[in-house]
Amino acid sequence: MRQGIVIVNTGNGKGKSTAMFGTLLRAWGRDMRVCVIQFIKAETGNWGEIKAARKLNLEWYALGDGFTWTSKDLDESGNKARKAWALAQEKIASGMYDLIALDEITYALNYGWLDVKEVIEWLRAHKPPELHLIFTGRDAPPELIDYADLVTEMREIKHPYQKGILAQAGVEF
Amino acid sequence: MRQGIVIVNTGNGKGKSTAMFGTLLRAWGRDMRVCVIQFIKAETGNWGEIKAARKLNLEWYALGDGFTWTSKDLDESGNKARKAWALAQEKIASGMYDLIALDEITYALNYGWLDVKEVIEWLRAHKPPELHLIFTGRDAPPELIDYADLVTEMREIKHPYQKGILAQAGVEF
Repeated sequence: MRQGIVIVNTGNGKGKSTAMFGTLLRAWGRDMRVCVIQFIKAETGNWGEIKAARKLNLEWYALGDGFTWTSKDLDESGNKARKAWALAQEKIASGMYDLIALDEITYALNYGWLDVKEVIEWLRAHKPPELHLIFTGRDAPPELIDYADLVTEMREIKHPYQKGILAQAGVEF
Repeated sequence: MRQGIVIVNTGNGKGKSTAMFGTLLRAWGRDMRVCVIQFIKAETGNWGEIKAARKLNLEWYALGDGFTWTSKDLDESGNKARKAWALAQEKIASGMYDLIALDEITYALNYGWLDVKEVIEWLRAHKPPELHLIFTGRDAPPELIDYADLVTEMREIKHPYQKGILAQAGVEF
């Protein structure tokens, strides 16, 4: 039987969600059943990857409120994160997928909206052994790194804002 | 006018080519004109990203000999790399693209098949200002990092082979 790999893309650099998206498309290229649940990004955002996902008819849920929690209702942000996790649990336990991505879930863990120990405990009990999972976001908690098989840190070495260049549509978002 | 960003994904971890692929798909989602030239991977390989690229009808050239140069004719590997660079020059200078990826070109630079100073000099003279470029591969030379706007190091923190798990089709290749 295939062994599911648990992947974590973390660090302060670019490429965490982008590599997740690349992995997803690679799996899609092999006719695997894939699903993305985004904990921070919102459907309303102007995101190239969401446009691409729609073109490809990928199963993609952007359930966050767009990184705007700092200026909005924190309880509401927490509720959205818990709703996203409930959907993730449903998808993971269904056994219907080969690869599920939980994009930017680390923020929900680090803000205390989800308890990392409870999340890992639930996964150990319910994740089908052959299911691949990808977690992304900065500052992955040690418990998540411990649970994972493949952890990569994306480190920022050089960024265009150092030259005063604004983020470019199409390549950066 | 849009400013082209020069991106480098380097480091010893996973995600360099995968994030390139994600960036490419993101740009494709915005109807940009994209092209990939792979310096190491060969068309004959069993690669999920090449399967996906074919499904999407992306312009994709895998011109390498599949990382097999250690056991084969080095002159032939060098010739392939120089042929890939000639194609890259043609595509870059054409002005027909929004984003061009030169995947795993660092190996050709580090093996001396291409001269990094000549490559950068040519790019400074011929790259259209609005064209985005992505370079991937381990050990990006300092001259390339100096030329780039956005450099990310993918660092391996944990890898499945540490647990004796083999690479999994669909997520790792």
